[in-house]
Amino acid sequence: MLKSKSCPKDMLGRARVVSLTEAMELLRHHMPDAVVDEEMLPLENTLGRILSRDIRSSEDLPAHPRSTMDGYAVKARDTFGATESLPAYFGISGEVSMGEFPNQGPLPGNCYAIATGGLLPPGTDAVVMLEHTVTIDGQMIEVVKPVAPGAHTIGIGEDIAKGNCIFSAGHRLRPQELGLLAGLGIVSLHVYRKVRVGIISTGDELVDFHESPRPGKIRDMNSVHLAALVARTGAEANGYGIAVDEEEQLAAMAEKALQENDLVLFSGSSSVGSRDLGEQVIGKLGGPGIIFHGVAVKPGKPVIFALAGNKPVFGLPGHPVSAAVSFSLFVEPVLDNLAGRQGDSGLPRRKTVSARLLRNIHSAAGRTDFVRVRISRDSEGTGFEAQPVLGTSGALSTMVKAHGYVVVNESEQGLKGGEMVEVKLYE
Amino acid sequence: MLKSKSCPKDMLGRARVVSLTEAMELLRHHMPDAVVDEEMLPLENTLGRILSRDIRSSEDLPAHPRSTMDGYAVKARDTFGATESLPAYFGISGEVSMGEFPNQGPLPGNCYAIATGGLLPPGTDAVVMLEHTVTIDGQMIEVVKPVAPGAHTIGIGEDIAKGNCIFSAGHRLRPQELGLLAGLGIVSLHVYRKVRVGIISTGDELVDFHESPRPGKIRDMNSVHLAALVARTGAEANGYGIAVDEEEQLAAMAEKALQENDLVLFSGSSSVGSRDLGEQVIGKLGGPGIIFHGVAVKPGKPVIFALAGNKPVFGLPGHPVSAAVSFSLFVEPVLDNLAGRQGDSGLPRRKTVSARLLRNIHSAAGRTDFVRVRISRDSEGTGFEAQPVLGTSGALSTMVKAHGYVVVNESEQGLKGGEMVEVKLYE
Repeated sequence: MLKSKSCPKDMLGRARVVSLTEAMELLRHHMPDAVVDEEMLPLENTLGRILSRDIRSSEDLPAHPRSTMDGYAVKARDTFGATESLPAYFGISGEVSMGEFPNQGPLPGNCYAIATGGLLPPGTDAVVMLEHTVTIDGQMIEVVKPVAPGAHTIGIGEDIAKGNCIFSAGHRLRPQELGLLAGLGIVSLHVYRKVRVGIISTGDELVDFHESPRPGKIRDMNSVHLAALVARTGAEANGYGIAVDEEEQLAAMAEKALQENDLVLFSGSSSVGSRDLGEQVIGKLGGPGIIFHGVAVKPGKPVIFALAGNKPVFGLPGHPVSAAVSFSLFVEPVLDNLAGRQGDSGLPRRKTVSARLLRNIHSAAGRTDFVRVRISRDSEGTGFEAQPVLGTSGALSTMVKAHGYVVVNESEQGLKGGEMVEVKLYE
Repeated sequence: MLKSKSCPKDMLGRARVVSLTEAMELLRHHMPDAVVDEEMLPLENTLGRILSRDIRSSEDLPAHPRSTMDGYAVKARDTFGATESLPAYFGISGEVSMGEFPNQGPLPGNCYAIATGGLLPPGTDAVVMLEHTVTIDGQMIEVVKPVAPGAHTIGIGEDIAKGNCIFSAGHRLRPQELGLLAGLGIVSLHVYRKVRVGIISTGDELVDFHESPRPGKIRDMNSVHLAALVARTGAEANGYGIAVDEEEQLAAMAEKALQENDLVLFSGSSSVGSRDLGEQVIGKLGGPGIIFHGVAVKPGKPVIFALAGNKPVFGLPGHPVSAAVSFSLFVEPVLDNLAGRQGDSGLPRRKTVSARLLRNIHSAAGRTDFVRVRISRDSEGTGFEAQPVLGTSGALSTMVKAHGYVVVNESEQGLKGGEMVEVKLYE
């Protein structure tokens, strides 16, 4: 495939900050074709996994016509013309036992008592609902309404026909899918293995979060934060610890992570030195290299997207709030693609809620802003209000105070207090 | 606590079908007070778990004032009066290294170069952004805009103050919480253990889904379906297999499941006999017994909610679609409560999407209908359309064809084709 688009440069050859629209286009254009391998798992262990093959049913469901109501199995034409004032009379020949195959049908003009799910006895083709009958005694009923052939029954293969494709490769398995597959006797199946994501934290100021930082140092929170974000998408996170700002060590760690994973995340330090170093190391991991560096979003501007061969590499901002925005905008769609996930009809990825914005939000034109908000019930108790959470993207507390965020698109210069806005909720 | 409300009866003493509103009120009224025990886990293993204790910070974050921008650390008053035409001049005394504690500040009238996250050197109280300076040479800068004390810095404890309660018991841990806790050096914490849910399938017609059913029998899909629904809420599902329709065996199995779990789900058979048997057995497990049996919802009407001592027991309809509706309406809130989860400000539990309904939906007044719909893009490609998925609640295929469902409330008699409706999406 021809992939002509590459890292946009300004007139001096430096990486240019691209708009979110441009960044998403570059991301789509360079989306790796590779999808991870498949593995075979017992059905019970496949919740949330992605099918790697189409699934066809090897049998008809139901295998025999069944009743979908409690009532009486009859030959439909014996009920034709029945009314409240002129009912049709039926003798009860017997009862269909659940779990038993009825070998014999009712005598002519007779019926069989049947419960929902019961198999239609030979010679019957419809079910009269209990509500449309009057019991005379244990032997006889009146039917007060005619039924058409097939009424209140489900025919052979009417639910799922033998040989039909039930799910296509790329489909994500929900609880109902597992139930259906169990019903078809599919005890194990092929799914894509989990995407492996290597995580490297960079920055001389970082210590492992188990350690007590001496003055000037801070604990590495991004490794834990990113591993949880990765796990929540269904992928597998592999931590490689903290790299100091030294090119050789960082490059060696990056090579190892790249070999052992399908995608690598660098969690950037805030220091200018390590930012440049990160770009240098990512750029040298292999062609085509850096696709974009810097996107006009707030927070999350200094994000890097690169391809080392067919493997995506991201340099994420060091601030946790910025990292979370970059992750959801750029890393999640790439993870979905690597995982083989397909066909969601463009349905929203996040829960949303409509809320009245409690104050003005200003934004620069050309920049997309992600503004954290805290939600509460409005005074009438019928709707929601959204209060912007102020504070720098470096303040951790803002991230946990917020229930979600509002997007100010690049074409807008802000949102007005009092407007109804759509809040995307953190899960 | 006085719990006077009990199973509503009609004039003949039979269980009465209650409205959804009544059912929810009974559920709230009889919500068990018990919450599961706590356990201590390493931070990395707590994603999605519920805090069992308040979390207080044992330190200030940040521990020292830090810069929130790239620029120069200065004493703010040295910049007062600076303009483009009359800039203030500063000598550069040095640079703050990331991860190092600056022991010495700039000489009077001088500044220190500083990156985002860097610690403010002694004697400085603000940061001038790079953008508001002009570099003269490596030794000297012009500052073209004054800064106020504290500008572009974050003070001691300004993010999180020592001793403050950061999260309350009952809070569910998201990725950002894990990041924050790592930043505070909290390496392990107390969370509620997973709620244990026992699942019993009943019905003479069922065989384990690994088996090949002979005529008249069908595979048990509900055990697998319900286990996945339970797992998705964060609880632990324990399967007890299939009970035949025989009171002693069913009662023994129920007793065992009740002893070993916090909540028990009976997946009902469709057969009338085992339905009655289920009610009988559930009723005898202990007081107060059955709270309601039958709710005016479609599908999902024949649901049972009971309390055996303090342990909730549910009898769910045998049809998978009905079982899923009952589970989400009644079982999920009880599971949340047992799990100790609190404080979601009434935010929606499911993703929703607005869609144009493609045909009329009829419903009986007094009954709440849950109508499965399939979503597609509308012809303009800007919105969504919702096509009702027809078929009985016994047809498995309808459950997997649908993307979500529309609710017709008990006060409504239907929805009109062409209306915009809110579709709740299956996850």
